[in-house]
Amino acid sequence: MEIMPNGFPSYSSDFTETMEFYRIETEKKLELLCGSFCEENDRYKSLYDAAEYSLKAGGKRIRPVLTLELCRAYDGKLSDALTAAAAIEMIHTFSLIHDDLPCMDDDDMRRGRPSCHKAFSEAGALLAGDMLIAMAGKVICESSLDAIKKSEMLSCLYDCTIGMIEGQTVDISGNFTDIGGLLQMYSLKTSELLKASCVMGCIAAGADKEDILKAKEYAYNLGLAFQIVDDILDVTSTEEQLGKPVGSDEEQNKITSVTLLGIDGARALAAEFTEKAENILCEMKNSSFLLQLTDLLLKRKK
Amino acid sequence: MEIMPNGFPSYSSDFTETMEFYRIETEKKLELLCGSFCEENDRYKSLYDAAEYSLKAGGKRIRPVLTLELCRAYDGKLSDALTAAAAIEMIHTFSLIHDDLPCMDDDDMRRGRPSCHKAFSEAGALLAGDMLIAMAGKVICESSLDAIKKSEMLSCLYDCTIGMIEGQTVDISGNFTDIGGLLQMYSLKTSELLKASCVMGCIAAGADKEDILKAKEYAYNLGLAFQIVDDILDVTSTEEQLGKPVGSDEEQNKITSVTLLGIDGARALAAEFTEKAENILCEMKNSSFLLQLTDLLLKRKK
Repeated sequence: MEIMPNGFPSYSSDFTETMEFYRIETEKKLELLCGSFCEENDRYKSLYDAAEYSLKAGGKRIRPVLTLELCRAYDGKLSDALTAAAAIEMIHTFSLIHDDLPCMDDDDMRRGRPSCHKAFSEAGALLAGDMLIAMAGKVICESSLDAIKKSEMLSCLYDCTIGMIEGQTVDISGNFTDIGGLLQMYSLKTSELLKASCVMGCIAAGADKEDILKAKEYAYNLGLAFQIVDDILDVTSTEEQLGKPVGSDEEQNKITSVTLLGIDGARALAAEFTEKAENILCEMKNSSFLLQLTDLLLKRKK
Repeated sequence: MEIMPNGFPSYSSDFTETMEFYRIETEKKLELLCGSFCEENDRYKSLYDAAEYSLKAGGKRIRPVLTLELCRAYDGKLSDALTAAAAIEMIHTFSLIHDDLPCMDDDDMRRGRPSCHKAFSEAGALLAGDMLIAMAGKVICESSLDAIKKSEMLSCLYDCTIGMIEGQTVDISGNFTDIGGLLQMYSLKTSELLKASCVMGCIAAGADKEDILKAKEYAYNLGLAFQIVDDILDVTSTEEQLGKPVGSDEEQNKITSVTLLGIDGARALAAEFTEKAENILCEMKNSSFLLQLTDLLLKRKK
């Protein structure tokens, strides 16, 4: 794979190899930041162990991939976007840790391993999540970016964090009965962080306002399509494909796009948001990677 | 009370009136920021209600007072320090909400009212605390300060937030047996936020590095003395004076400066930190208000 002077793979690179490059670079950055967390003090080592346990749980690192790719698309430098990518993953991880807690979704397992509060303790998981919200801000403040970019990124990061928390509030209170309410909740819970991922990549590269608006619109539609595809897979997939029990939404009496619109209605809506996301990409420069990523996320079988 | 062109009370103003001025200005700023939180959406109104419930629980607003007073001492403008003062109070409030949760200290009451999770729900209190960490950053990002001051303040704010979380980790794990460990825990749990309060006031005013160092040292000693005085009052005060049961530390088998050093040893240590704090103030300009505040906090009977 050819690496350009700005640190990114060249556009002729293979999609899968580029995905892998982004994942590895993000994990290296997280490792570096985690390593500098704790220093010598073992009185509160458990705090960082709990955060690291969840940060290292893996996954495709979709959000950092978006940050890095948007920075590449707008001709930025890899090193300017990596801290933002790590910060985004910290916020994502905080939300998973706190969402799994007994007073929230009460999930004992996450990605095939015990969730953070099961592996450590409830108090430990609560504090690790809290710490990650603050750490995401701290690593951006301490990066080598200029003060204006830092402040723009932090504004974007904490705006989306608040949006996610609003979304979780709607979700647990069940304060919606129609498709409009459901989509608003999905937008807050999922699209907000995807938006911040894209926008922070744009800021790292110094993209202009119009490009940032397009990136936001892409992320909004991507997030909604992603959630609706999730609803559909819960009904149509097999347990083997999904790696978790199918039909769990129905069992829990959850309101989803499938319960509200039926399977065909949900499919039509997913197709609509997918098309919108793809149309925006077609107006953006250097978007072939993002088109493939969108395809991967929205046409998945699990 | 005479108000100077920079928005602060003149130095000839009465101590108690100035304290009251700072409290009212902080609460007005919080009210303004809270009012703009929620806008029209009542699907997640409960999130902001829970945060507001705890933000409005009152108290002397010591931390905002420090921020505002340090800004006055270094000739800054009131308007430049008010957002920082509000952000500090948000972080303080987050820590109270999460510390009270059942998996942490499990306190049903806070300042004579049901704690946040009792008045709302555990999930509601968890989310309100999370939101306040993010909101503290957001309000600074959205203030009219220049980007460098914003970034310096945010670095300071999230550093201290992490320190507090480390302190709470040490506290609940009981990972200390000697006075050194106890003081480190007190420093993290209490001094860190007092330090940030002072430093953010200095940053607002554009104070130089040397002055910031002095402010930090003052806050460090103030925090330790404050905690040791707390330990002493738990033993020597009456229930009537304290407004809560005395002797609760002993009942809970808590390690405190009194259990480790005896009452006279704790008094001697409190006097030592108090003297250090006062000596630093004597080297600082315009410190008469801070000397009175230190006296109020460290010679209190409740």
